[in-house]
Amino acid sequence: MAQKPSIPKGTRDFSPSEVAKRNFIFDTVKKHFKTFGFQPIETPSFENSSTLMGKYGDEGDRLIFKILNSGDFISKVDDVTYSSKDSKSLTPKISEKALRYDLTVPFARYVVMHQNEIDFPFKRYQIQPVWRADRPQKGRFREFFQCDADVVGANSLLQEVEFIQLYDAVFADLGLSGVNIKLNNRKILAGIAEVIGAKHLLIDFTVALDKLDKIGEEGVKKEMLSKGISEASIEKAAPLFTLSGTNLEQLQSLKTLLSNSEEGTKGVEELTFIIESITTLGLQSASLSIDVTLARGLNYYTGAIFEVSAPEGVKMGSIGGGGRYDDLTGVFGLKDVSGVGISFGLDRIYLVLEELNLFPEAIDQSLDVLCLNFGDKEALAALKLITQLRASGIKADLYPSNTKMQKQFKYANNRKVPFVILLGDSELENNSFVVKNMEEGSQKEYSLKKIEDFINYLS
Amino acid sequence: MAQKPSIPKGTRDFSPSEVAKRNFIFDTVKKHFKTFGFQPIETPSFENSSTLMGKYGDEGDRLIFKILNSGDFISKVDDVTYSSKDSKSLTPKISEKALRYDLTVPFARYVVMHQNEIDFPFKRYQIQPVWRADRPQKGRFREFFQCDADVVGANSLLQEVEFIQLYDAVFADLGLSGVNIKLNNRKILAGIAEVIGAKHLLIDFTVALDKLDKIGEEGVKKEMLSKGISEASIEKAAPLFTLSGTNLEQLQSLKTLLSNSEEGTKGVEELTFIIESITTLGLQSASLSIDVTLARGLNYYTGAIFEVSAPEGVKMGSIGGGGRYDDLTGVFGLKDVSGVGISFGLDRIYLVLEELNLFPEAIDQSLDVLCLNFGDKEALAALKLITQLRASGIKADLYPSNTKMQKQFKYANNRKVPFVILLGDSELENNSFVVKNMEEGSQKEYSLKKIEDFINYLS
Repeated sequence: MAQKPSIPKGTRDFSPSEVAKRNFIFDTVKKHFKTFGFQPIETPSFENSSTLMGKYGDEGDRLIFKILNSGDFISKVDDVTYSSKDSKSLTPKISEKALRYDLTVPFARYVVMHQNEIDFPFKRYQIQPVWRADRPQKGRFREFFQCDADVVGANSLLQEVEFIQLYDAVFADLGLSGVNIKLNNRKILAGIAEVIGAKHLLIDFTVALDKLDKIGEEGVKKEMLSKGISEASIEKAAPLFTLSGTNLEQLQSLKTLLSNSEEGTKGVEELTFIIESITTLGLQSASLSIDVTLARGLNYYTGAIFEVSAPEGVKMGSIGGGGRYDDLTGVFGLKDVSGVGISFGLDRIYLVLEELNLFPEAIDQSLDVLCLNFGDKEALAALKLITQLRASGIKADLYPSNTKMQKQFKYANNRKVPFVILLGDSELENNSFVVKNMEEGSQKEYSLKKIEDFINYLS
Repeated sequence: MAQKPSIPKGTRDFSPSEVAKRNFIFDTVKKHFKTFGFQPIETPSFENSSTLMGKYGDEGDRLIFKILNSGDFISKVDDVTYSSKDSKSLTPKISEKALRYDLTVPFARYVVMHQNEIDFPFKRYQIQPVWRADRPQKGRFREFFQCDADVVGANSLLQEVEFIQLYDAVFADLGLSGVNIKLNNRKILAGIAEVIGAKHLLIDFTVALDKLDKIGEEGVKKEMLSKGISEASIEKAAPLFTLSGTNLEQLQSLKTLLSNSEEGTKGVEELTFIIESITTLGLQSASLSIDVTLARGLNYYTGAIFEVSAPEGVKMGSIGGGGRYDDLTGVFGLKDVSGVGISFGLDRIYLVLEELNLFPEAIDQSLDVLCLNFGDKEALAALKLITQLRASGIKADLYPSNTKMQKQFKYANNRKVPFVILLGDSELENNSFVVKNMEEGSQKEYSLKKIEDFINYLS
């Protein structure tokens, strides 16, 4: 019995046109990664489980795809564990490898393993798929590409400045103007928690603040209260909800608010440096704005925090994000390596470009020229012509069988071929070929001895 | 305790220089795939186990990496199976997904699932990793890329002709001249088995014949005898061991030998058409030769069989192979779809290019220009200059900290940067920058107002 085929939920097939569009984004991002001095690395799809487990919290551990050991894996399980019939204790006995969950932990592992070959500061980019056993839903997949650039071993804030420029360069090149790069600093969040007397509740405080967009000022205050942050503390944080003016004006307000916090003051200084540098250097089309509510994986970041939102009017979550994190590699035994990095959200950028109709028009034109097939002898002559076209970089093909003209033209139309070549017996006699412009319907005859005339016309 | 990190056996990290070299091969192959009219698709890394299991024989089933079900997977195992403590019966109960083992089965699955969107004939290429739980050894990995091009829905032998041209175009472009494309046809092998009276022993016959290179004529005959092929049959096959002359002369001998086999005669006709067409069209640098010992996965192929060997003098197995197979998609319910395809052996091609020193010299030059860092003010001016260089597509970077010149120059040397820019306080005063040519040791001063002079010099 033939199987009716399907693919696992949360995974996708990509058609030629989808691959072309995805590659358009990847290629653009890569081009700028390279001009900014980043170098590519690639790591294996699966890592030893010990490399991944425990690095993403309990939720992460649960969502990591585990690979079953090969061979007679059950014979290696001791009887006590086996008789417990407990998935959690059984898993490490029957699975030693797991699929990559993100690119950051494998990168940290890479840096530690290859530290003697690497010239620090090391600017690396990595574009590879990751896998998460998340519940699939609209826009969330179990296999998706991450697209990361990080610098390790450089403490200078110029790195943060460069990442803002990099976001701007990529989105400008993609034709996506009007993205907003939001900027915050963990030190500012910590400083605020400190000056309002809620230092021990930093995480609760920032998680609530992060929701300002969604639940409004009252909602945020309510959540803070429910987490044990006092009315008095919340009152002290009031200036956060009314921050306004330019970035530098907002920083001025924050400076006043945070004057009693050393850490907070440091955060304001850092953001001021970044904002002033970007003002000097200028951006092509993105805007840059301070956003003190921005937290992202706060436990992770120790300095700057970035997030990019799509142009106004496009309903889409963030299309990129990142920040600075100290001690990237400590867990693998290499201390005091600071990192800072950003990522591009491929799937969402794809949807935004699609919605705004920003993909180049000819992006899924996979064939420049199709030669029709009039029979063996003519086909061989056509293949000779095609061989020369291909050698000039022209995407050319021969319809493989001598079938009805109507069917061959239909195929040409379906594949959106702009030029169809007719090389039948009369042309063969004349040593010529006829080119039909499929959009205009016009025809022109060329000599087989001067194929370059047609090649020049095409280029 | 910090972990000492490692990666699973049979997997690899790729350094920036290795990624650059691998991409050089991929990009070259892709360029020609495209000019030959192939379109890219991508399929998920894991498939439902039912899609993969049973498609590659028992050995294949064993080597497929299975993914453990998420959550409390054990609770779904019935008591009878669980108490058997048998890995083989337990596997399908705790694992429903498996990592791709090759690109052909997922492609067949894709064609069937998307048959209504596809314009046949469909020429697709696919370059993605596959995974096999094979014992790792020199040149054999548990994760490696396959690089395939196939045509489905076209019976014409012109496809075979084009694949030979495609091999030639790619290897010529890689600078790898002198590869030998070996060509056979299953119908010829079947015809020989038929005329020598060993039709029922076709597989044993061809498996033995395939070893001629390694064990010599006597070895082959001995193996055939041991498999039950009679002395008389082996005697009749003698002409195979003395085939000589040009391809067309060999085909003439085969024609005589196979005159009593309809299938064999068909095979000779097919090869004759292919050889004559290629003779008419010409090849750039590859040679094409009939090789009746060539079998590869014979059970799989039904017509032409290809294999490419590295230039003489390079010790390396085949660097590519393929053939025609009928009924690619039958197992998934779509009958009568003939396919023909080839693949490129990336890892081996890499080793051959490395051995022959054929990678472009500047392939791992990841930076064109490095600006040294003389302090905050100078660094910001340098970043302004760098921003303009990058916008012109130049790979430029700023050393991130104001550290000792010696250290900065050492970094430039390690990264093989051809030009180092000095922009210190005196240059800043002069509104200029100094470019040092690292190979020649020479220096030249440019005006910050005429950066294009330097850009033009570089390009």
